[in-house]
Amino acid sequence: MASPLPHPLGVVGLGLMGASLARAARAADPGLRVVAVEPRPEVRRAALEDGVAQVALAEPGPELASCPVVVLCTPIAAIEALLGPLSRLVGDGAVLTDVGGAKEHLAARAAEQVRPGVAFVGAHPMFGGHGGYGGARADLWRGGRVAVCTDGAPEAVERVAALHAALGAEVIRCRAAEHDAAVAMVSHLPYLVASALAVAAGEAGPLALRLAGPGLKDTTRLAQFPFDIQGEVSRRNARLPEAAERLSRHLGRLLAAVADSPEAARAALEQARAAREALYPPRGEGGT
Amino acid sequence: MASPLPHPLGVVGLGLMGASLARAARAADPGLRVVAVEPRPEVRRAALEDGVAQVALAEPGPELASCPVVVLCTPIAAIEALLGPLSRLVGDGAVLTDVGGAKEHLAARAAEQVRPGVAFVGAHPMFGGHGGYGGARADLWRGGRVAVCTDGAPEAVERVAALHAALGAEVIRCRAAEHDAAVAMVSHLPYLVASALAVAAGEAGPLALRLAGPGLKDTTRLAQFPFDIQGEVSRRNARLPEAAERLSRHLGRLLAAVADSPEAARAALEQARAAREALYPPRGEGGT
Repeated sequence: MASPLPHPLGVVGLGLMGASLARAARAADPGLRVVAVEPRPEVRRAALEDGVAQVALAEPGPELASCPVVVLCTPIAAIEALLGPLSRLVGDGAVLTDVGGAKEHLAARAAEQVRPGVAFVGAHPMFGGHGGYGGARADLWRGGRVAVCTDGAPEAVERVAALHAALGAEVIRCRAAEHDAAVAMVSHLPYLVASALAVAAGEAGPLALRLAGPGLKDTTRLAQFPFDIQGEVSRRNARLPEAAERLSRHLGRLLAAVADSPEAARAALEQARAAREALYPPRGEGGT
Repeated sequence: MASPLPHPLGVVGLGLMGASLARAARAADPGLRVVAVEPRPEVRRAALEDGVAQVALAEPGPELASCPVVVLCTPIAAIEALLGPLSRLVGDGAVLTDVGGAKEHLAARAAEQVRPGVAFVGAHPMFGGHGGYGGARADLWRGGRVAVCTDGAPEAVERVAALHAALGAEVIRCRAAEHDAAVAMVSHLPYLVASALAVAAGEAGPLALRLAGPGLKDTTRLAQFPFDIQGEVSRRNARLPEAAERLSRHLGRLLAAVADSPEAARAALEQARAAREALYPPRGEGGT
């Protein structure tokens, strides 16, 4: 039986996502060759020694011409910058795909810059972590969810979906605009809210810091993301202002209910509690 | 040496906080008698059997007359309702104190309802958890922080501070108004923000739910609190609207920076990241 994985597989960027993707693909098909692009020489060396990549290039080169699929696993600004150049290195019929967290803007860039004869299909694994190359895991894809954008050519979309499915992920097909509206609400807005709350709490003075507990810690956790990872992605999500307006409306409504009467406060906040339970059925998480 | 603990110690409410307080006091001074008030008969029985309380009353009664200090450990609405009646049961010179999460409103109620000759000192342990009586721990106070309000008579304030210090907590003295302003920002506003975000995310449709990850989960965790615990407390914090305005201002500023330019977005979001790192020095917390 032929492997469902594209052979050789191009992987650009050997951080946590790229190196995990390469490890997962090699675990699924030990005969698979990975052609990697990675600027850091020590990471290239490690990837070759570890068998994570069989070819490791310092920059995109003609070796990518043999790859039917190339996955861009760099921060999103680099994904955008590389789309045009990579499309001129790969062969006719090749597919470029990515792991970036905002899809509409990238699809528009791809439409401008990817050469005719090469397809671009946006994808977004809804998982990740920390640790870069050293934190990469062959099972990172297993049981995770990957949004695959259906805006591109159907045959190319199915090749990208098949790749993620072969690595053990659940594929969620959606339009780039649908993806961005959803992710604005569940990821990019929470990041901005966490960031705003961290600044506001930081201004509240030393007593506030002494009285802060795990509640503020969890609520501001996302503010830790480096700008190059989450800020650059959020900045590219045109659906973010709409999500923020929706949140502001609900926050204003809750504040008004709290000021209005005990009954109004109870009704509004119990509805919010039910909404949280619908999102994440409770299992005794701790602490204020 | 005399025990620094008031003897006998009155504890009203044997949920997690009251039962942990009683356990901690008995662990610090095994000869201490605890006079508890608890409406649930099975909890009264357990407390007597476990040695957590030596007297367990179904409702406040004349047995409290012997207690120089009575700590109210019920939800805040019950604390308010009990202040007047308890002040008529305890002796002259006794101190009533509590563990409620908002202090200004309660101090005003106490000023109206606590009889002359009895002092009220507001206190707020900045820790807690789940599990009610069964989850109570003798070491819950140890290493925790307790805000003790300095608005009351200085001698009474010091007795309450000494109680919490004897149980192993760090005492933070502050005015009730200072407490509420600080806690509005680090606890009550995060609760309302988490609640608003849970409602907004819940409205975002099934794709958003499928794409939601640990970021949304952490950011909305506080929305799980029952209204009787956190809603009733937040509702009593007059400083909440001011904290919410500050947050809205910063969220608006971040959104404007994100829309303005890559440079403005980077500056604003890196400043927020630095604010989060100042609040909680990073140690590799995971996941988006």
